[in-house]
Amino acid sequence: MAKSKGSKKKAAKPAGPVTLRDGERLADLLRVPAGEVDPAGFDPRATPGFDGDKADAPAAIAALSPELSDLQERLYASGRAEPERARRVLLVLQGMDTSGKGGVLRHVIGQLDPQGTSIKAFKAPTEEELAHHFLWRIERELPTPGMIGIFDRSQYEDVLIARVNQLAGEDVIMTRYDEINAWEADLVQTGTVVIKCFLQISKDEQKARLTERLTDPAKYWKYNPGDLDSRAKWDAYTEAYAAVLTRCNPDTAPWYVIPADRKWYRNWAITRLLTEHLRDLGLGWPAAEFDVAEEQRRLAES
Amino acid sequence: MAKSKGSKKKAAKPAGPVTLRDGERLADLLRVPAGEVDPAGFDPRATPGFDGDKADAPAAIAALSPELSDLQERLYASGRAEPERARRVLLVLQGMDTSGKGGVLRHVIGQLDPQGTSIKAFKAPTEEELAHHFLWRIERELPTPGMIGIFDRSQYEDVLIARVNQLAGEDVIMTRYDEINAWEADLVQTGTVVIKCFLQISKDEQKARLTERLTDPAKYWKYNPGDLDSRAKWDAYTEAYAAVLTRCNPDTAPWYVIPADRKWYRNWAITRLLTEHLRDLGLGWPAAEFDVAEEQRRLAES
Repeated sequence: MAKSKGSKKKAAKPAGPVTLRDGERLADLLRVPAGEVDPAGFDPRATPGFDGDKADAPAAIAALSPELSDLQERLYASGRAEPERARRVLLVLQGMDTSGKGGVLRHVIGQLDPQGTSIKAFKAPTEEELAHHFLWRIERELPTPGMIGIFDRSQYEDVLIARVNQLAGEDVIMTRYDEINAWEADLVQTGTVVIKCFLQISKDEQKARLTERLTDPAKYWKYNPGDLDSRAKWDAYTEAYAAVLTRCNPDTAPWYVIPADRKWYRNWAITRLLTEHLRDLGLGWPAAEFDVAEEQRRLAES
Repeated sequence: MAKSKGSKKKAAKPAGPVTLRDGERLADLLRVPAGEVDPAGFDPRATPGFDGDKADAPAAIAALSPELSDLQERLYASGRAEPERARRVLLVLQGMDTSGKGGVLRHVIGQLDPQGTSIKAFKAPTEEELAHHFLWRIERELPTPGMIGIFDRSQYEDVLIARVNQLAGEDVIMTRYDEINAWEADLVQTGTVVIKCFLQISKDEQKARLTERLTDPAKYWKYNPGDLDSRAKWDAYTEAYAAVLTRCNPDTAPWYVIPADRKWYRNWAITRLLTEHLRDLGLGWPAAEFDVAEEQRRLAES
């Protein structure tokens, strides 16, 4: 494979809307910088790494598709043939209502072989879940070897909605940041690639999307009156995200901020991020765990 | 929607490779007839309902795609908005090794929104599973309201491999046919659409596909020496399939035989079958469970 891998040659000026030179990573452009972070400082309409518009996006996504598909199959093959050493990938999607978590699942994850993905949407915890440590229900949904797991909301709800709605005391919330960091460090240590995406939309864009849901009867089902209650707490959520991006952003499990006012950019960006992270794994094909010549002989006789 | 629904008008001669007239169903062509069935009587290279070749298939599949996508979204929406009355779909995939169960998952199910699908591949039962009734592990993986569940192997393994390898006595196997029938009848009764597909390949085609897996190092991981042991029991498996297709084939949960020597036909046929079954449900969009005008007013003020 390796056809699209970062080349060691002199970086060429890219043609087309993608402005990343050969070997340059979108991950570097979208990485939330270490230190104190204010999400208000990011522009949700920006298109880092992409100098084009909506019409250019499908081709740019399609251009990544064969490589992404090949990489995913290698990862999955590894999970099947050598589970004890196979890697796992966890993509965490967080963002305000209508920020596009479902759209990413449909359009980005929908490009992948569904055999190799597992999606978990975390809702309000059940009685049983509340009776356990907040990471208990998360832990159970982690991807198995060779799989790409996607969390639609995640462990971070316990320091986002929990903080905004004061479902837990301040000291408990403070402890949770540390617990999340320790837990993620362990995940990474044991072979999981953690990609955390904050889908950032503007308050105006959210209004437009909610309006659509209240206008088109085919979208009523996506609307929940509670969405407006959360919207009323926009600033408190922004603050809670700021704390997450500041406190839970180590190099080993970093946050990426995905400007998400433009759905097409959001989809391209996450497709590209996923591809880059899979490239980094240098995935080969698992070796045969049987005598190939002997099996060929048996098959010929069968 | 309803743009592709069976019309009440005089059926027109179809253009293009699909030879089904308006309102005709592929399901009727692929339905395993009631009564004594011998799978050897079906031609795995046939292409019922399709008068074209490999080059025609992608366009024929793409032509179904918008409708299938719309239908799936309606089903999913129903599951979210009105779970107590939402339907469920269960697609059962059975067939010999290399018959293309994984290919269907990748190419057919991969067209769908992964949020609305759940895939379960049944392997050899674990100790825990063996300690329970054979339907226990199946029951737990049934699709929830609004979901399309896909079983890669299924309850039928307990009357296929179990029969061929005599993992259970003849009387136990005989009882299981009845238990499966009763269990599926209950499933259907409680709102699940059950679509059972037998992917039929020829012994020669299996040899060709196994040869490929033993030739291309990117496919070694798909090969298992045990595949040849099963292959050696081809006739016993054919007999076991004959018993399944004869004994567990009621109108409410019928078997479809999918000629599967041609992958492109297999993919088109299952895409079409799934579309037809979803059409039958007459799915609308869930009504708003809130006061739309009031929410519009609240949103405008927010």
